[in-house]
Amino acid sequence: MNKKGTLIVISGFSGVGKGTVVKRLVSEYGYNLSVSATTRAPREGEVNGREYYFMDKGEFENLIDYGGFFEWTQYVENYYGTPRKYVEQSLNEGKDIILEIEVMGAMSVKQQYPEALLIFIAAPSIKSLRDRLVSRGTENEATIVKRLKKATEEACDMDKYDYIVINDNLDVCVEEVNSIIRGYSCRCANNLQFIQEIKDELKEI
Amino acid sequence: MNKKGTLIVISGFSGVGKGTVVKRLVSEYGYNLSVSATTRAPREGEVNGREYYFMDKGEFENLIDYGGFFEWTQYVENYYGTPRKYVEQSLNEGKDIILEIEVMGAMSVKQQYPEALLIFIAAPSIKSLRDRLVSRGTENEATIVKRLKKATEEACDMDKYDYIVINDNLDVCVEEVNSIIRGYSCRCANNLQFIQEIKDELKEI
Repeated sequence: MNKKGTLIVISGFSGVGKGTVVKRLVSEYGYNLSVSATTRAPREGEVNGREYYFMDKGEFENLIDYGGFFEWTQYVENYYGTPRKYVEQSLNEGKDIILEIEVMGAMSVKQQYPEALLIFIAAPSIKSLRDRLVSRGTENEATIVKRLKKATEEACDMDKYDYIVINDNLDVCVEEVNSIIRGYSCRCANNLQFIQEIKDELKEI
Repeated sequence: MNKKGTLIVISGFSGVGKGTVVKRLVSEYGYNLSVSATTRAPREGEVNGREYYFMDKGEFENLIDYGGFFEWTQYVENYYGTPRKYVEQSLNEGKDIILEIEVMGAMSVKQQYPEALLIFIAAPSIKSLRDRLVSRGTENEATIVKRLKKATEEACDMDKYDYIVINDNLDVCVEEVNSIIRGYSCRCANNLQFIQEIKDELKEI
Protein backbone atom coordinates (compact mmCIF):
# COMPACT_ATOMS: atom_id res chain seq x y z
CA MET A 1 0.00 0.00 0.00
CA ASN A 2 1.60 3.20 -1.17
CA LYS A 3 0.18 6.06 0.87
CA LYS A 4 0.61 9.65 -0.25
CA GLY A 5 1.99 12.17 2.22
CA THR A 6 -0.21 14.86 3.73
CA LEU A 7 -0.03 18.43 2.47
CA ILE A 8 -0.21 20.48 5.67
CA VAL A 9 -1.04 24.16 5.39
CA ILE A 10 -0.38 26.26 8.48
CA SER A 11 -1.61 29.83 8.76
CA GLY A 12 -2.43 32.02 11.69
CA PHE A 13 -2.77 35.51 13.00
CA SER A 14 0.10 37.83 12.27
CA GLY A 15 2.21 37.76 15.43
CA VAL A 16 0.70 34.61 16.90
CA GLY A 17 4.00 32.75 16.82
CA LYS A 18 3.24 30.29 14.02
CA GLY A 19 6.82 30.49 12.74
CA THR A 20 8.04 29.12 16.07
CA VAL A 21 5.43 26.36 16.01
CA VAL A 22 6.50 25.34 12.50
CA LYS A 23 10.20 25.40 13.42
CA ARG A 24 9.55 23.05 16.32
CA LEU A 25 7.48 20.71 14.18
CA VAL A 26 10.42 20.48 11.80
CA SER A 27 13.15 20.12 14.44
CA GLU A 28 11.31 17.88 16.92
CA TYR A 29 9.13 15.76 14.69
CA GLY A 30 11.12 15.82 11.47
CA TYR A 31 8.47 17.27 9.19
CA ASN A 32 9.53 18.63 5.80
CA LEU A 33 8.99 22.31 5.26
CA SER A 34 8.25 23.63 1.81
CA VAL A 35 10.75 26.24 0.66
CA SER A 36 9.21 29.27 -1.03
CA ALA A 37 10.54 30.97 -4.13
CA THR A 38 11.12 34.71 -4.23
CA THR A 39 12.48 37.40 -6.50
CA ARG A 40 13.86 39.48 -3.65
CA ALA A 41 17.63 39.53 -3.26
CA PRO A 42 19.15 37.06 -0.79
CA ARG A 43 20.13 38.61 2.54
CA GLU A 44 23.46 37.86 4.17
CA GLY A 45 23.66 34.26 5.28
CA GLU A 46 20.66 33.13 3.27
CA VAL A 47 21.26 30.04 1.16
CA ASN A 48 19.46 29.28 -2.10
CA GLY A 49 17.11 26.32 -1.51
CA ARG A 50 17.21 26.70 2.26
CA GLU A 51 15.57 30.03 3.17
CA TYR A 52 14.20 30.54 -0.34
CA TYR A 53 14.67 29.57 -3.94
CA PHE A 54 15.99 32.81 -5.33
CA MET A 55 14.81 33.60 -8.86
CA ASP A 56 14.84 36.58 -11.14
CA LYS A 57 11.59 38.17 -12.20
CA GLY A 58 11.59 36.55 -15.64
CA GLU A 59 12.06 33.06 -14.26
CA PHE A 60 9.32 33.59 -11.68
CA GLU A 61 6.81 34.93 -14.21
CA ASN A 62 7.64 32.11 -16.55
CA LEU A 63 6.90 29.60 -13.79
CA ILE A 64 3.59 31.37 -13.07
CA ASP A 65 2.63 30.95 -16.73
CA TYR A 66 3.46 27.25 -16.60
CA GLY A 67 1.27 26.73 -13.51
CA GLY A 68 4.40 25.97 -11.52
CA PHE A 69 3.12 27.53 -8.29
CA PHE A 70 0.57 26.25 -5.84
CA GLU A 71 0.06 29.86 -4.83
CA TRP A 72 1.97 33.08 -5.29
CA THR A 73 1.66 36.69 -4.32
CA GLN A 74 3.35 40.01 -4.97
CA TYR A 75 4.55 42.12 -2.06
CA VAL A 76 6.49 45.39 -2.35
CA GLU A 77 7.57 44.70 -5.94
CA ASN A 78 8.75 41.18 -5.17
CA TYR A 79 7.11 37.87 -5.91
CA TYR A 80 6.75 35.09 -3.37
CA GLY A 81 5.32 31.66 -4.15
CA THR A 82 5.18 27.94 -3.37
CA PRO A 83 6.75 25.92 -6.20
CA ARG A 84 4.56 22.94 -6.98
CA LYS A 85 7.36 20.56 -7.99
CA TYR A 86 9.09 19.90 -4.66
CA VAL A 87 5.79 19.71 -2.78
CA GLU A 88 4.29 17.16 -5.17
CA GLN A 89 7.49 15.14 -5.17
CA SER A 90 7.44 14.87 -1.35
CA LEU A 91 3.76 13.89 -1.30
CA ASN A 92 4.31 11.21 -3.93
CA GLU A 93 7.18 9.81 -1.88
CA GLY A 94 4.71 9.47 1.02
CA LYS A 95 6.29 12.34 2.97
CA ASP A 96 4.18 14.93 4.78
CA ILE A 97 5.11 18.50 3.95
CA ILE A 98 4.27 21.76 5.70
CA LEU A 99 3.41 25.00 3.92
CA GLU A 100 3.47 28.06 6.17
CA ILE A 101 1.43 30.50 4.13
CA GLU A 102 -1.09 33.32 4.39
CA VAL A 103 -4.83 32.83 4.41
CA MET A 104 -5.37 33.73 0.75
CA GLY A 105 -2.69 31.30 -0.38
CA ALA A 106 -4.16 28.61 1.86
CA MET A 107 -7.59 29.01 0.27
CA SER A 108 -5.99 28.69 -3.16
CA VAL A 109 -4.13 25.51 -2.15
CA LYS A 110 -7.33 23.95 -0.75
CA GLN A 111 -9.11 24.66 -4.01
CA GLN A 112 -6.42 22.93 -6.07
CA TYR A 113 -5.73 20.16 -3.58
CA PRO A 114 -8.86 19.46 -1.51
CA GLU A 115 -7.18 16.72 0.55
CA ALA A 116 -4.79 19.33 2.03
CA LEU A 117 -4.97 19.65 5.82
CA LEU A 118 -5.54 23.28 6.82
CA ILE A 119 -4.57 24.32 10.33
CA PHE A 120 -5.09 27.80 11.71
CA ILE A 121 -3.06 28.95 14.72
CA ALA A 122 -5.06 31.41 16.78
CA ALA A 123 -4.33 33.41 19.91
CA PRO A 124 -6.58 32.67 22.90
CA SER A 125 -8.14 36.11 22.34
CA ILE A 126 -7.45 39.30 20.40
CA LYS A 127 -6.61 40.99 23.69
CA SER A 128 -3.88 38.41 24.29
CA LEU A 129 -2.60 38.86 20.72
CA ARG A 130 -2.31 42.62 21.32
CA ASP A 131 -0.60 42.05 24.69
CA ARG A 132 1.85 39.72 22.98
CA LEU A 133 2.68 42.28 20.31
CA VAL A 134 3.06 45.05 22.90
CA SER A 135 5.30 42.96 25.18
CA ARG A 136 7.65 42.15 22.30
CA GLY A 137 8.53 45.84 22.39
CA THR A 138 9.70 45.74 18.78
CA GLU A 139 6.67 47.36 17.21
CA ASN A 140 5.08 50.76 17.64
CA GLU A 141 1.36 51.31 18.20
CA ALA A 142 0.69 52.00 14.50
CA THR A 143 2.26 48.68 13.45
CA ILE A 144 0.33 46.83 16.13
CA VAL A 145 -2.95 48.31 14.95
CA LYS A 146 -1.98 47.34 11.38
CA ARG A 147 -1.36 43.75 12.47
CA LEU A 148 -4.68 43.63 14.30
CA LYS A 149 -6.49 45.01 11.25
CA LYS A 150 -4.84 42.23 9.28
CA ALA A 151 -6.11 39.73 11.87
CA THR A 152 -9.62 40.97 11.08
CA GLU A 153 -9.19 39.94 7.43
CA GLU A 154 -7.59 36.64 8.42
CA ALA A 155 -10.41 35.84 10.86
CA CYS A 156 -12.97 36.01 8.01
CA ASP A 157 -11.62 32.75 6.59
CA MET A 158 -10.79 31.05 9.88
CA ASP A 159 -13.83 28.81 9.64
CA LYS A 160 -12.67 27.49 6.27
CA TYR A 161 -9.73 25.77 8.00
CA ASP A 162 -10.05 22.14 9.04
CA TYR A 163 -8.58 22.71 12.49
CA ILE A 164 -8.09 25.64 14.85
CA VAL A 165 -5.27 25.38 17.38
CA ILE A 166 -4.99 27.95 20.14
CA ASN A 167 -1.43 28.98 20.90
CA ASP A 168 -1.77 29.65 24.60
CA ASN A 169 1.06 27.37 25.70
CA LEU A 170 3.68 26.71 22.99
CA ASP A 171 4.43 23.10 24.03
CA VAL A 172 0.75 22.18 24.05
CA CYS A 173 0.20 23.94 20.72
CA VAL A 174 3.07 22.07 19.02
CA GLU A 175 1.85 18.73 20.40
CA GLU A 176 -1.70 19.44 19.28
CA VAL A 177 -0.64 20.28 15.74
CA ASN A 178 1.46 17.10 15.65
CA SER A 179 -1.52 15.05 16.89
CA ILE A 180 -3.76 16.56 14.23
CA ILE A 181 -1.30 15.68 11.46
CA ARG A 182 -0.73 12.19 12.79
CA GLY A 183 -4.41 11.47 13.21
CA TYR A 184 -5.28 12.93 9.80
CA SER A 185 -3.55 10.15 7.91
CA CYS A 186 -5.81 7.61 9.67
CA ARG A 187 -8.96 9.24 8.30
CA CYS A 188 -11.19 6.74 6.58
CA ALA A 189 -10.90 8.71 3.33
CA ASN A 190 -7.14 8.13 3.43
CA ASN A 191 -7.58 4.38 3.81
CA LEU A 192 -10.02 3.45 1.08
CA GLN A 193 -7.45 1.28 -0.67
CA PHE A 194 -6.70 -0.58 2.58
CA ILE A 195 -10.43 -1.11 3.22
CA GLN A 196 -10.83 -2.54 -0.27
CA GLU A 197 -7.89 -4.90 0.28
CA ILE A 198 -9.45 -6.16 3.53
CA LYS A 199 -12.82 -6.68 1.85
CA ASP A 200 -11.16 -8.56 -1.03
CA GLU A 201 -9.30 -10.79 1.40
CA LEU A 202 -12.54 -11.54 3.28
CA LYS A 203 -14.31 -12.64 0.10
CA GLU A 204 -11.97 -15.61 -0.02
CA ILE A 205 -12.95 -17.00 3.37
CA MET B 1 -15.74 28.86 26.65
CA ASN B 2 -17.37 25.66 27.81
CA LYS B 3 -16.35 22.88 25.45
CA LYS B 4 -18.21 19.59 25.42
CA GLY B 5 -16.23 16.37 25.70
CA THR B 6 -15.82 14.04 22.75
CA LEU B 7 -17.86 10.85 22.51
CA ILE B 8 -15.34 8.31 21.22
CA VAL B 9 -16.64 5.07 19.80
CA ILE B 10 -14.08 2.31 19.34
CA SER B 11 -14.90 -0.85 17.41
CA GLY B 12 -12.76 -3.30 15.54
CA PHE B 13 -12.41 -6.80 14.24
CA SER B 14 -13.18 -9.55 16.69
CA GLY B 15 -9.78 -10.62 18.03
CA VAL B 16 -7.86 -7.55 16.85
CA GLY B 17 -6.92 -6.55 20.40
CA LYS B 18 -9.14 -3.49 20.76
CA GLY B 19 -9.80 -4.28 24.43
CA THR B 20 -6.08 -3.94 25.12
CA VAL B 21 -5.92 -0.67 23.17
CA VAL B 22 -8.83 0.74 25.18
CA LYS B 23 -7.33 -0.40 28.50
CA ARG B 24 -4.10 1.42 27.68
CA LEU B 25 -5.93 4.58 26.64
CA VAL B 26 -7.64 4.56 30.03
CA SER B 27 -4.56 3.73 32.11
CA GLU B 28 -1.96 5.81 30.23
CA TYR B 29 -3.97 8.79 29.04
CA GLY B 30 -6.71 8.89 31.66
CA TYR B 31 -9.70 8.60 29.35
CA ASN B 32 -13.07 7.72 30.86
CA LEU B 33 -14.58 4.47 29.75
CA SER B 34 -18.32 4.09 29.58
CA VAL B 35 -19.63 1.24 31.72
CA SER B 36 -22.26 -0.93 30.04
CA ALA B 37 -25.39 -2.23 31.68
CA THR B 38 -26.31 -5.90 31.54
CA THR B 39 -28.91 -8.32 32.82
CA ARG B 40 -26.46 -11.18 33.12
CA ALA B 41 -25.46 -12.20 36.64
CA PRO B 42 -22.23 -10.72 38.04
CA ARG B 43 -19.27 -13.09 37.95
CA GLU B 44 -16.97 -13.51 40.92
CA GLY B 45 -14.98 -10.35 41.55
CA GLU B 46 -17.14 -8.15 39.33
CA VAL B 47 -18.30 -4.94 40.95
CA ASN B 48 -21.53 -3.13 40.09
CA GLY B 49 -20.63 0.11 38.28
CA ARG B 50 -17.08 -1.04 37.46
CA GLU B 51 -17.34 -4.00 35.06
CA TYR B 52 -21.05 -3.46 34.42
CA TYR B 53 -24.15 -1.92 35.85
CA PHE B 54 -26.07 -5.04 36.82
CA MET B 55 -29.83 -4.79 36.31
CA ASP B 56 -32.73 -7.17 36.27
CA LYS B 57 -34.69 -7.70 33.08
CA GLY B 58 -37.58 -5.48 34.15
CA GLU B 59 -35.32 -2.53 34.96
CA PHE B 60 -33.45 -2.90 31.67
CA GLU B 61 -36.63 -3.09 29.57
CA ASN B 62 -38.04 -0.12 31.43
CA LEU B 63 -34.91 1.87 30.59
CA ILE B 64 -35.22 0.84 26.92
CA ASP B 65 -38.78 2.18 26.90
CA TYR B 66 -37.62 5.49 28.36
CA GLY B 67 -34.90 5.88 25.70
CA GLY B 68 -32.28 5.47 28.39
CA PHE B 69 -29.81 3.62 26.15
CA PHE B 70 -27.58 4.95 23.41
CA GLU B 71 -27.59 1.45 22.03
CA TRP B 72 -28.48 -1.98 23.33
CA THR B 73 -28.49 -5.54 22.13
CA GLN B 74 -29.64 -8.95 23.25
CA TYR B 75 -27.17 -11.81 23.34
CA VAL B 76 -27.95 -15.33 24.64
CA GLU B 77 -31.02 -14.23 26.62
CA ASN B 78 -29.21 -11.31 28.25
CA TYR B 79 -29.38 -7.63 27.47
CA TYR B 80 -26.33 -5.39 27.10
CA GLY B 81 -26.47 -1.66 26.57
CA THR B 82 -24.85 1.77 26.97
CA PRO B 83 -26.79 3.88 29.48
CA ARG B 84 -27.20 7.37 28.14
CA LYS B 85 -27.09 9.18 31.49
CA TYR B 86 -23.45 8.70 32.53
CA VAL B 87 -22.17 9.31 28.99
CA GLU B 88 -24.09 12.56 28.58
CA GLN B 89 -23.05 13.72 32.04
CA SER B 90 -19.35 13.22 31.19
CA LEU B 91 -19.70 15.02 27.85
CA ASN B 92 -21.46 17.97 29.48
CA GLU B 93 -18.66 18.19 32.03
CA GLY B 94 -16.23 18.52 29.10
CA LYS B 95 -14.81 15.03 29.61
CA ASP B 96 -14.08 12.72 26.69
CA ILE B 97 -15.59 9.28 27.07
CA ILE B 98 -14.84 6.02 25.27
CA LEU B 99 -17.47 3.49 24.22
CA GLU B 100 -16.06 0.13 23.18
CA ILE B 101 -18.96 -1.31 21.22
CA GLU B 102 -19.84 -3.43 18.22
CA VAL B 103 -20.34 -2.07 14.72
CA MET B 104 -24.14 -2.09 14.86
CA GLY B 105 -24.16 -0.18 18.14
CA ALA B 106 -21.63 2.29 16.73
CA MET B 107 -23.84 3.03 13.75
CA SER B 108 -26.76 3.63 16.10
CA VAL B 109 -24.70 6.02 18.26
CA LYS B 110 -23.53 7.99 15.20
CA GLN B 111 -27.13 8.39 14.08
CA GLN B 112 -28.21 9.81 17.44
CA TYR B 113 -25.05 11.78 18.09
CA PRO B 114 -23.43 12.78 14.77
CA GLU B 115 -20.51 14.56 16.44
CA ALA B 116 -19.32 11.22 17.89
CA LEU B 117 -15.83 10.21 16.80
CA LEU B 118 -15.84 6.69 15.34
CA ILE B 119 -12.57 4.79 15.28
CA PHE B 120 -12.19 1.31 13.80
CA ILE B 121 -9.25 -0.84 14.85
CA ALA B 122 -8.22 -3.13 12.01
CA ALA B 123 -5.60 -5.80 11.62
CA PRO B 124 -2.94 -5.16 8.95
CA SER B 125 -4.58 -7.93 6.91
CA ILE B 126 -7.09 -10.73 7.40
CA LYS B 127 -4.22 -13.20 7.14
CA SER B 128 -2.53 -11.53 10.12
CA LEU B 129 -5.84 -11.56 12.05
CA ARG B 130 -6.13 -15.29 11.44
CA ASP B 131 -2.47 -15.84 12.44
CA ARG B 132 -3.11 -13.88 15.62
CA LEU B 133 -6.14 -15.97 16.51
CA VAL B 134 -4.27 -19.22 15.76
CA SER B 135 -1.20 -18.22 17.79
CA ARG B 136 -3.34 -17.42 20.84
CA GLY B 137 -4.02 -21.17 20.94
CA THR B 138 -7.23 -20.62 22.90
CA GLU B 139 -9.65 -21.13 20.05
CA ASN B 140 -10.34 -24.06 17.77
CA GLU B 141 -10.58 -23.83 14.00
CA ALA B 142 -14.39 -23.58 14.04
CA THR B 143 -14.32 -20.59 16.41
CA ILE B 144 -11.63 -18.90 14.32
CA VAL B 145 -13.71 -19.30 11.17
CA LYS B 146 -16.71 -17.89 13.08
CA ARG B 147 -14.68 -14.84 14.11
CA LEU B 148 -13.49 -14.29 10.56
CA LYS B 149 -17.05 -14.59 9.24
CA LYS B 150 -17.95 -11.94 11.80
CA ALA B 151 -15.11 -9.78 10.48
CA THR B 152 -16.77 -9.96 7.06
CA GLU B 153 -19.91 -8.38 8.50
CA GLU B 154 -17.89 -5.80 10.43
CA ALA B 155 -15.87 -4.85 7.35
CA CYS B 156 -19.08 -3.87 5.52
CA ASP B 157 -19.42 -0.80 7.74
CA MET B 158 -15.71 -0.02 8.14
CA ASP B 159 -15.93 2.89 5.72
CA LYS B 160 -18.63 4.52 7.84
CA TYR B 161 -16.07 5.10 10.59
CA ASP B 162 -14.23 8.42 10.76
CA TYR B 163 -10.82 6.85 11.30
CA ILE B 164 -9.19 3.48 10.66
CA VAL B 165 -6.22 2.55 12.83
CA ILE B 166 -4.16 -0.51 11.99
CA ASN B 167 -3.06 -2.49 15.03
CA ASP B 168 0.24 -3.77 13.75
CA ASN B 169 2.33 -2.49 16.65
CA LEU B 170 0.36 -1.97 19.88
CA ASP B 171 2.36 1.08 21.07
CA VAL B 172 1.95 2.84 17.72
CA CYS B 173 -1.74 1.96 17.59
CA VAL B 174 -2.41 3.38 21.08
CA GLU B 175 -0.50 6.58 20.24
CA GLU B 176 -2.36 6.98 16.97
CA VAL B 177 -5.75 6.62 18.62
CA ASN B 178 -4.71 9.16 21.25
CA SER B 179 -3.55 11.57 18.52
CA ILE B 180 -6.85 11.20 16.69
CA ILE B 181 -8.85 11.98 19.82
CA ARG B 182 -6.64 14.91 20.74
CA GLY B 183 -6.72 16.41 17.26
CA TYR B 184 -10.47 15.88 16.92
CA SER B 185 -11.31 18.48 19.54
CA CYS B 186 -9.43 21.09 17.47
CA ARG B 187 -11.68 20.57 14.45
CA CYS B 188 -13.11 23.81 13.21
CA ALA B 189 -16.63 22.50 13.84
CA ASN B 190 -15.73 22.14 17.52
CA ASN B 191 -14.55 25.73 17.74
CA LEU B 192 -17.38 27.73 16.21
CA GLN B 193 -18.07 29.52 19.49
CA PHE B 194 -14.40 30.48 19.83
CA ILE B 195 -14.31 31.76 16.24
CA GLN B 196 -17.39 33.90 16.93
CA GLU B 197 -15.78 35.33 20.07
CA ILE B 198 -12.64 36.26 18.11
CA LYS B 199 -14.72 37.91 15.38
CA ASP B 200 -16.73 39.84 17.98
CA GLU B 201 -13.54 41.05 19.64
CA LEU B 202 -12.12 42.19 16.28
CA LYS B 203 -15.24 44.27 15.52
CA GLU B 204 -14.23 46.54 18.38
CA ILE B 205 -10.82 47.46 16.93
